[in-house]
Amino acid sequence: MANKKRVYLFREGNATMRDLLGGKGANLAEMTNLGIHVPPGFTITTETCNEYTKLGHLPEGLWEEVLAALADVEKDMGKKLGMADNPLLVSVRSGAKFSMPGMMDTVLNLGLNEDSLKGIIAASGNERFAYDAYRRFLMMFSDIVLSSDYPMLKKEYFEKIFSDMKEKLGAKIDTDVDAANLKELCQKYKEYFKSITGNDFPTDPLEQLKLAIIAVFKSWNNERAIIYRNREKISHDLGTAVNVQTMVFGNMGDDCGTGVAFTRNPATGEDKLFGEFLKNAQGEDVVAGVRTPESIDQMEQEFPTIHTEFEDIADRLEKHYRDMQDIEFTIEKGRLFILQCRSGKRTGVAAVKIAVDMVGEGLINKEEALTRVAPEALEQLLHPRIKNAKDAKVIARGLNAGPGGASGHIALDSKVAIEMAAEGKKVILVREETNPDDLGGMLASAGVLTSRGGRTSHAALIARQYGIPTVCGCSALHINEEKRQIAVNGMVLNQGDVITIDGTLGEVYQGELETEPASVTGDFGTFMAWTDEYRKLGIRANADTPEHAADAVALGCEGIGLCRTEHMFLGSERAPLVADMILADNEETREKALAKLLPFQRAAFVGIFKAMGGRPVTVRLIDPPLHEFLPAHTDLLMEITEMRCKNPNDPALPAKEELFRKVMDMHEANPMLGLRGCRLSIYFPGIVNMQVRAIIGAACELKKAGLEVHPEIMIPLIGTVEELAYLKAQLTDVATDEMKSEGVEVDYKIGTMIEIPRAALTADEVAKEAEFFSFGTNDLTQMGYGISRDDAGKFLPLYIEKQIFKTDPTETIDQKGIGRLMKICVDDAKAVNPTIKLGICGEHGGDPDSVKFCHRLGLTYVSCSPKRIPVARLAAAQAAIEEKGNASQRDK
Amino acid sequence: MANKKRVYLFREGNATMRDLLGGKGANLAEMTNLGIHVPPGFTITTETCNEYTKLGHLPEGLWEEVLAALADVEKDMGKKLGMADNPLLVSVRSGAKFSMPGMMDTVLNLGLNEDSLKGIIAASGNERFAYDAYRRFLMMFSDIVLSSDYPMLKKEYFEKIFSDMKEKLGAKIDTDVDAANLKELCQKYKEYFKSITGNDFPTDPLEQLKLAIIAVFKSWNNERAIIYRNREKISHDLGTAVNVQTMVFGNMGDDCGTGVAFTRNPATGEDKLFGEFLKNAQGEDVVAGVRTPESIDQMEQEFPTIHTEFEDIADRLEKHYRDMQDIEFTIEKGRLFILQCRSGKRTGVAAVKIAVDMVGEGLINKEEALTRVAPEALEQLLHPRIKNAKDAKVIARGLNAGPGGASGHIALDSKVAIEMAAEGKKVILVREETNPDDLGGMLASAGVLTSRGGRTSHAALIARQYGIPTVCGCSALHINEEKRQIAVNGMVLNQGDVITIDGTLGEVYQGELETEPASVTGDFGTFMAWTDEYRKLGIRANADTPEHAADAVALGCEGIGLCRTEHMFLGSERAPLVADMILADNEETREKALAKLLPFQRAAFVGIFKAMGGRPVTVRLIDPPLHEFLPAHTDLLMEITEMRCKNPNDPALPAKEELFRKVMDMHEANPMLGLRGCRLSIYFPGIVNMQVRAIIGAACELKKAGLEVHPEIMIPLIGTVEELAYLKAQLTDVATDEMKSEGVEVDYKIGTMIEIPRAALTADEVAKEAEFFSFGTNDLTQMGYGISRDDAGKFLPLYIEKQIFKTDPTETIDQKGIGRLMKICVDDAKAVNPTIKLGICGEHGGDPDSVKFCHRLGLTYVSCSPKRIPVARLAAAQAAIEEKGNASQRDK
Repeated sequence: MANKKRVYLFREGNATMRDLLGGKGANLAEMTNLGIHVPPGFTITTETCNEYTKLGHLPEGLWEEVLAALADVEKDMGKKLGMADNPLLVSVRSGAKFSMPGMMDTVLNLGLNEDSLKGIIAASGNERFAYDAYRRFLMMFSDIVLSSDYPMLKKEYFEKIFSDMKEKLGAKIDTDVDAANLKELCQKYKEYFKSITGNDFPTDPLEQLKLAIIAVFKSWNNERAIIYRNREKISHDLGTAVNVQTMVFGNMGDDCGTGVAFTRNPATGEDKLFGEFLKNAQGEDVVAGVRTPESIDQMEQEFPTIHTEFEDIADRLEKHYRDMQDIEFTIEKGRLFILQCRSGKRTGVAAVKIAVDMVGEGLINKEEALTRVAPEALEQLLHPRIKNAKDAKVIARGLNAGPGGASGHIALDSKVAIEMAAEGKKVILVREETNPDDLGGMLASAGVLTSRGGRTSHAALIARQYGIPTVCGCSALHINEEKRQIAVNGMVLNQGDVITIDGTLGEVYQGELETEPASVTGDFGTFMAWTDEYRKLGIRANADTPEHAADAVALGCEGIGLCRTEHMFLGSERAPLVADMILADNEETREKALAKLLPFQRAAFVGIFKAMGGRPVTVRLIDPPLHEFLPAHTDLLMEITEMRCKNPNDPALPAKEELFRKVMDMHEANPMLGLRGCRLSIYFPGIVNMQVRAIIGAACELKKAGLEVHPEIMIPLIGTVEELAYLKAQLTDVATDEMKSEGVEVDYKIGTMIEIPRAALTADEVAKEAEFFSFGTNDLTQMGYGISRDDAGKFLPLYIEKQIFKTDPTETIDQKGIGRLMKICVDDAKAVNPTIKLGICGEHGGDPDSVKFCHRLGLTYVSCSPKRIPVARLAAAQAAIEEKGNASQRDK
Repeated sequence: MANKKRVYLFREGNATMRDLLGGKGANLAEMTNLGIHVPPGFTITTETCNEYTKLGHLPEGLWEEVLAALADVEKDMGKKLGMADNPLLVSVRSGAKFSMPGMMDTVLNLGLNEDSLKGIIAASGNERFAYDAYRRFLMMFSDIVLSSDYPMLKKEYFEKIFSDMKEKLGAKIDTDVDAANLKELCQKYKEYFKSITGNDFPTDPLEQLKLAIIAVFKSWNNERAIIYRNREKISHDLGTAVNVQTMVFGNMGDDCGTGVAFTRNPATGEDKLFGEFLKNAQGEDVVAGVRTPESIDQMEQEFPTIHTEFEDIADRLEKHYRDMQDIEFTIEKGRLFILQCRSGKRTGVAAVKIAVDMVGEGLINKEEALTRVAPEALEQLLHPRIKNAKDAKVIARGLNAGPGGASGHIALDSKVAIEMAAEGKKVILVREETNPDDLGGMLASAGVLTSRGGRTSHAALIARQYGIPTVCGCSALHINEEKRQIAVNGMVLNQGDVITIDGTLGEVYQGELETEPASVTGDFGTFMAWTDEYRKLGIRANADTPEHAADAVALGCEGIGLCRTEHMFLGSERAPLVADMILADNEETREKALAKLLPFQRAAFVGIFKAMGGRPVTVRLIDPPLHEFLPAHTDLLMEITEMRCKNPNDPALPAKEELFRKVMDMHEANPMLGLRGCRLSIYFPGIVNMQVRAIIGAACELKKAGLEVHPEIMIPLIGTVEELAYLKAQLTDVATDEMKSEGVEVDYKIGTMIEIPRAALTADEVAKEAEFFSFGTNDLTQMGYGISRDDAGKFLPLYIEKQIFKTDPTETIDQKGIGRLMKICVDDAKAVNPTIKLGICGEHGGDPDSVKFCHRLGLTYVSCSPKRIPVARLAAAQAAIEEKGNASQRDK
């Protein structure tokens, strides 16, 4: 540990050192070595951050390394930190392995004090600029570095002092305040600082630097960073690097400026430089969305030479990294500096278009294209679009920051948005601008609308990352926080009113507009076709109705892996028949009720089989505990208590009491572990007999009509081979009988779900009786963990927070435990029944990590909800490509 | 299959062929080859029974083999089946691999018809005997062979015809009826047979034989046989053999007789011939308990030579088989025939004494002695004894057929006994005599009392086998079925009244007498000491109080494997504190409530640690869902509904509603899979902190008093290593703090229960954090099977009945599935933590098969309820001996 290098000058690193230097540091090093003009600096490693976290203080020896690196930078720049004569200013920024925009802390202009201020004034010849930088530094340093100890040092208190001064001066915008006033403001800031802390503002630049480094380390574990990592499944052990870099200034005058640009359009994927630029401004003005910047095209007019230079650099960087880049730059007194470069976040739409285009350009191959798009992002391509906006009135226009259409109730802050969403309402979050604290509210909303901020503002960034339809910088919008109203072009809307936004066009409508699903065409179609060239896993859908089945076919499914049948027992016509059946005192009454259900179910299967056009359909026989179809015992108890109290002789009472008795007879302490699945079918054989009659009858009907049909009958909740053998024998008899009476034979299979741990552990027996297995990973996870999803709400969030669960096992298959059970099952099943079909139909079937795991397990197919099908297809293709990669690595 | 030999003459078999010939057939063969006088015959194999069951008819070729064997027997005896001249009569009996007394069918006197009857009369010179045999045959054949098709052919209808005749004749007992009347009775039987079936009674002896063989095959799957096998864990695939054997007659006159004898006393183990004898009677008279037979000693006086011959044979057989034998014999006209010989069923008490005695006699060695006693039988030695009967009035005396004292409510039939037991009452079943249909009622009873039947009657047999305290042949007892009363020596008792029986002395008392537990002394003590010489598994107890702990130590436990702590939260003083704690709105209130619970719990642990005298004590931290300590939500709902209805302004209503709201907040859909075990401890850290403070505080207190103490803290329901690591860190801090404040260090361990499948599957991680594992096989089985024991009541009986579960996995560990999970866990845990202690504390810890499995798994100890400790000790010793046997077999 003692000999480990902790500090790297930019020229000492390269792009492969992301683990150690973070993404930003590695890229700054890479660019430096590419000869691109990057302000010099150095990076403190992520490992050092972890050391700090463990120790609670800076590790021994670090500071000496920092000073040596600083001396190198000072020599390179010919400047010195804190010197009155030609002073060096630096930025101190976080930079983790994976980008976490806005989640951690940054300090700019570090090194300013009364001495160096003089040097800056001398060097820039611009007193106003120098005091502006100073007042920004005083505020930012106080806020970032010290406000966790002194809450009154938060930014807002300094802003208040500034706005009070502006009001007194009658100044409208910051630039209306002159150098003298800014100098006075700096004095006020320092007085305020002392009034809060009792100490003078730190003047020693090295002390400033040390405190700032510590603040960045600490920011790795601030609350919003932890929430972000949990959501993004980024490990909490990675730590952040710290980049200390020479400051350059975009706000020294009209020959200065700053901007952020993408080498291609991150919203649409269009192959055209896309970005924003502000003259005479510092970078944070752009990123924070405080001022609405101009388009990058504006730079071409104002700084034509620099624009060309920048275009050239952008092109070099894109070609070097073979991916679309997100580049921060600053123009200081007519000189272009590249401050940062990283792979640009993009919408799913853009990701697909860029990948397809780059294959066309010969920049990458199909395999690379397929690995470039996060499977989850494809779901964004399926965002509904506004169907017909012709007659609707556009009440405002803004920037089309996140594609897709959405309607919802106006919420004016994140808290309200989360509350409304919890009530089941669709929400449009409407804010002046958003900041990292709004993440929760944004994720809870169907769409986001802001009045300020551009395409690279926080709102736009999040919109792209999470695929939230978003309209930004809608300047016609005026928000009245107090009255909880918004005013738009003379119209007033209240919080709770419904609006619609079109994030694809940047338009806002009053009221709700109809939307329609997207289709798999164009680049999206091309891309999805490529996934099919690579993947080995079959993709099926979980679909219960002809409508779902049709959607799933349109999205590329190859069959139904799970057709639930519970809904076939519900509905106003059917539910009373089901209650009759369950509560019947004798088999005869039960059989009569079942006979009435048969035609409903047969018709339902005819519809589904038709929609699937000959693809296999796995039908799961009835699964939930019967009491789910019955009235709640607590409701009955209340009714009875009330009736007894009001009129004990109520003639309706005895029947109600009898009903209660029967319902209580079916009541279970742990319904999840009770009379359900195959147990129910052994207990009440009539129900599944009726279901098999309906399935086989429907199949025969279609076959006679000349259609192809392949039903697969799936028996749920098998724990022992004897259960399966018992029901298989019974159901085979019913199927044979039904085919005989229909006069035609159909191809059908009988198999089982593997959702009880014991079934997986005894697969060598169970597989002998089954033609297919389908992992019911929801239940397998429930039983394997001993956790009911219905009841986990109390402690699961606590578990995630405390990192007891690194990922939520109900979302992603727990490969270590539940996955091991699956592996045992797969190996044992194949050993005794090599032709067995193996699938998965739990909700994990649409989770990319889980899909890849299923590929590695050697399953035949995954089955997921229709809208996850593109996700699963891509994940399956990536799994196959990764496997090839691993195989070729092994070959070396 | 075609060439497989299906029929074996007795001289063709031997004792090792039990699988094929059944126990009875193998022993008849063995005895035949020992030169003991056995009536000749042959055995049809058990495999043939299975063939029959599969085919539904006799397999081809069997009949020819039967005829050939029959011809051999006929030649041997010089008689012929069905001939008028010197006819052969045979018995046709079942005989499975394992004895199933009275469970299957037997036909005697087969071969009788009008022709052969003449031959019998001629041969015996006793017309009355011949007709008596004939009327028995007519009845038995009809009942056994044909009553499943014709229910009106059941024995009782024939008995009725006989008793009507006796009444008309004024005959008191059977022997009062003369030959002429018996002849008339036979005629009536044949007429009755024809009136029911429409056919004549079958006269062809070969047809009789064929039908009887089929009837025996069928009886393998009669209901009571299946129930018996389920209880005894005998496989249903074994099938029964059929023994066809020459009839000899004990009822041909006063130079005849029949009896059953044990080579040692089966109730006490005393080394003295023990049995019963009836002059001029057929065997079934003895076994069925219809006539109360005399003691075997009576035979010595009446047939001194034969008695000596019999004693000699008994001695030879016991020495040959090196075990106590149960021998059936018949004296026909002064000649002794041995009809059957098998290892005698015995009480646990007898089994232990015989085993210990035989070691003393040099007949067997200690290892054999230990394998001779069924572990389950030891529980019988722990039957309570009547403590002080001095002042109690003996109301009747009978035979001491099953040792132990028992009090209970009189039930006059098995149905009532089962119902009363289901209500939680202790029952004494009082019957004239019992028959195989009474098995269920006897098992439900604490004791059995019969007015007829001797020590080898059905009641006595079952009493011995299942260790039910039983008094037989209590002739003073008169049962009035109609009035549901019994009269005893002038006293009248009603069904439901309480009596006490002393099965050790054969006495009956009115009312309830106090009982005391047995102790491990004398032969029992010697035997248990031997178990400790062989066993490798440690034996611990599940004990929650000082009293349980003391009982467990007396029975030989080496520590506590499971000290549950739930009861420490209950009781009138503590329960309200617990409710306060759970429902507290803030941590402060919760901490206050916990502080009040601390002294109670500490005192409880002091008591338990003292009782264990330095042995290790594993304390499980709080486990059940908290709502178990709260009022039922349904009760609250009823109360609130009633209050609202009666007086909506009731001032007590709001508080009740608030309580309901809080209780509902804790309500769970599946509490078994909810907030319990370690999850609860992570959610409410205060409870376990308090518990650890109490445990460590108590340990420190005792250590300071100079006592030895080894607490082991067990964290339940771990599913991931992170849960364990999290709590271990927290609890270690508490323990350290407590030791510091007590000023003394104690030796304590922290470990976990393995009861969540995932914990077993990830043992390579979990074992790194644990000093011990204890398998909670109750939950592991629940989760592994996905079956809640609370809810399995609906389908588990159906599963056992339909053989979907061959054994109940909640009683005996399912080695195939749950056992595999345990094996994975043990192997992985030892690999990363070779010194880890591994135990089991589920209820399976007292089940012999499960104990043996735990030995094979290589666990450190099993823990079971105190009264199962001797059972577990013996099972553990047997497992070690079996392992040696397997090892030495492998060595060969």
